[in-house]
Amino acid sequence: MRSPTSKLTLTGRRTEVTASDAEQLLVSIFAGLGFASRASKQVAAHLVETSLCGIESHGIMRVLEYAKQVRTGYLDPTGTPSIQRDDRGVFRVEGGGGIGIPTMQLAYETGVEEAREKGISALSIRNVGHTGRHGAFADMAAEQGFLTICVGGGNRKTWRQVAPYGGTKALLPTNPWCVGIPGGDMGPVVLDFATSKIAGGWIYAARSAGALLPEGCIIDKEGNATRNPEDYFDGGAILSSGAQKGYALAVVGEIIGEAMLGPSTTECNWLLITLDTTRFREPGAIEASAEEVLAELRNCPPAPGFTQVEVPGERERNHHAASEGRIAVPDETWAQINKLAHNLGVANVSPPQPN
Amino acid sequence: MRSPTSKLTLTGRRTEVTASDAEQLLVSIFAGLGFASRASKQVAAHLVETSLCGIESHGIMRVLEYAKQVRTGYLDPTGTPSIQRDDRGVFRVEGGGGIGIPTMQLAYETGVEEAREKGISALSIRNVGHTGRHGAFADMAAEQGFLTICVGGGNRKTWRQVAPYGGTKALLPTNPWCVGIPGGDMGPVVLDFATSKIAGGWIYAARSAGALLPEGCIIDKEGNATRNPEDYFDGGAILSSGAQKGYALAVVGEIIGEAMLGPSTTECNWLLITLDTTRFREPGAIEASAEEVLAELRNCPPAPGFTQVEVPGERERNHHAASEGRIAVPDETWAQINKLAHNLGVANVSPPQPN
Repeated sequence: MRSPTSKLTLTGRRTEVTASDAEQLLVSIFAGLGFASRASKQVAAHLVETSLCGIESHGIMRVLEYAKQVRTGYLDPTGTPSIQRDDRGVFRVEGGGGIGIPTMQLAYETGVEEAREKGISALSIRNVGHTGRHGAFADMAAEQGFLTICVGGGNRKTWRQVAPYGGTKALLPTNPWCVGIPGGDMGPVVLDFATSKIAGGWIYAARSAGALLPEGCIIDKEGNATRNPEDYFDGGAILSSGAQKGYALAVVGEIIGEAMLGPSTTECNWLLITLDTTRFREPGAIEASAEEVLAELRNCPPAPGFTQVEVPGERERNHHAASEGRIAVPDETWAQINKLAHNLGVANVSPPQPN
Repeated sequence: MRSPTSKLTLTGRRTEVTASDAEQLLVSIFAGLGFASRASKQVAAHLVETSLCGIESHGIMRVLEYAKQVRTGYLDPTGTPSIQRDDRGVFRVEGGGGIGIPTMQLAYETGVEEAREKGISALSIRNVGHTGRHGAFADMAAEQGFLTICVGGGNRKTWRQVAPYGGTKALLPTNPWCVGIPGGDMGPVVLDFATSKIAGGWIYAARSAGALLPEGCIIDKEGNATRNPEDYFDGGAILSSGAQKGYALAVVGEIIGEAMLGPSTTECNWLLITLDTTRFREPGAIEASAEEVLAELRNCPPAPGFTQVEVPGERERNHHAASEGRIAVPDETWAQINKLAHNLGVANVSPPQPN
């Protein structure tokens, strides 16, 4: 079992939980929150898979946030995805104000189906809560030979977190981009990133841990560099990744989500483009050529401070393979999840022993 | 007339040239190099427009490089674009080993035409020389209501310039991304960037000017930070923009260009995706909503060291509007262009007076 990826040093202990125990507990919790059976299973499986990939920020700890969002009415536990093709030929996926993970799953599956038939497809995804780890969906599509580009935005009035390049005021959300494409011997190449220096969750995590953030990530309300998360909450902002380049990607995301697909209602609106790569070249030739490129990258001598050059998407799969079906959950997080289950009256899973 | 955007301080004088004089001279030069009449006009007009937009690195000075490429046989002056739809329904644009500007123009026009009919289109563009300023094509498509995404790669064996994130060795080209989308009152939002910290041309410019590069752009052969352009030529590399994020965008570009569209022959291969935004929402509503987003950004208080927050794509249009049809060309560059015309026996334009 590997340690998950973290931008902070957690000093507390961790509990080792099997994926099946975690999934069973999460399914019970989602059912207790009023989710339909199918949605409970889909969301629980997605969060557990994400934890097994080492992406703690999007893993099983999210159940706590989703539960809070259901309690406050922000998220409709009965909201279910639907899809229709309008009279202009556009596929519109609607999330019904529910959790976005089943909606995004449906969108990627439909995008692949349409692109398999027509070569390329574009879908609008709206009215959804949190949509989970997009890389998981992109990986699934790329495994079948499809290039996907998913970009969203449009919730800036609720989530003003990021300053435009050259500005002092948090105006934009962290509008992420996700691209997946078939790769070589080790599987697809998947990028899945926020257009900001860091995702918003790290600031909450730093505040809660009393930790400083890495340099160059946030500014205070006057636009000066700072590492103190409190400066963010006092009118500061996260900086764009790659200066004007991440900013430009975020603006495009906002125009797509708000202007082209909008108005936004719950969180971001999303555009998903799916393309059948096998129409361009035979799958075997794509994989052989990709492997040649990627092997060169993996074999590059590492720079000072690095142990190896990574290929985007491989870290998650390697972490999953090394996890042996076990997740290292911070004790405090696991206790909170169990408390939530207890409060919902669904705590019928015997708690695993601490490691 | 504004000064063009430059990462270096040029100490030499500049000559002011009218766009029509520059274009006439460039048309003659391209004809003298063996380009067909239509291609000569297209390429000359594109370079002049780019100079008027203030993008000096992609402007009229490129005629010197193209002439050299024709002389060495790298570029076929008679190579003309063609297009065909194969039996799998894929539109393949071929550049015939010629200059890529007319090819890219044809690709964007065809992409728009197809997307107008079907909602979305994807085109492969191969076997082309330099394809000019993609932002100009994206701007043209977005003015008509189309979202475009253009990404390329696949020429790494000739152009190993950029180190993968965490590596010391230059392995990848600067694989650029260009995205355009309809905007608000001031026109489309257009991003057009290399995935490296700086474009390769700046290193040549710094060496030639005896200047240091900005901090954090290149590393020496051991992977240590440096500002000296000679360290790049001595086995160093350009860094990725936005660390692992620009790197991931570059890897995706390389897999698209080399593995999916490849093998690459002349320079990059390109994938162009075009989408009709008006199928998703009425044009008036898109523009009104976009303007609301963009006005907020323009009105953001500037950070220390900045005078304003810009919207991607507006700087070029503002520069063009303020240019009054005149280009400030470094004396040395203008002299070289005139010398080239003289040597080709096409120097029939009376040289303008220095400013």
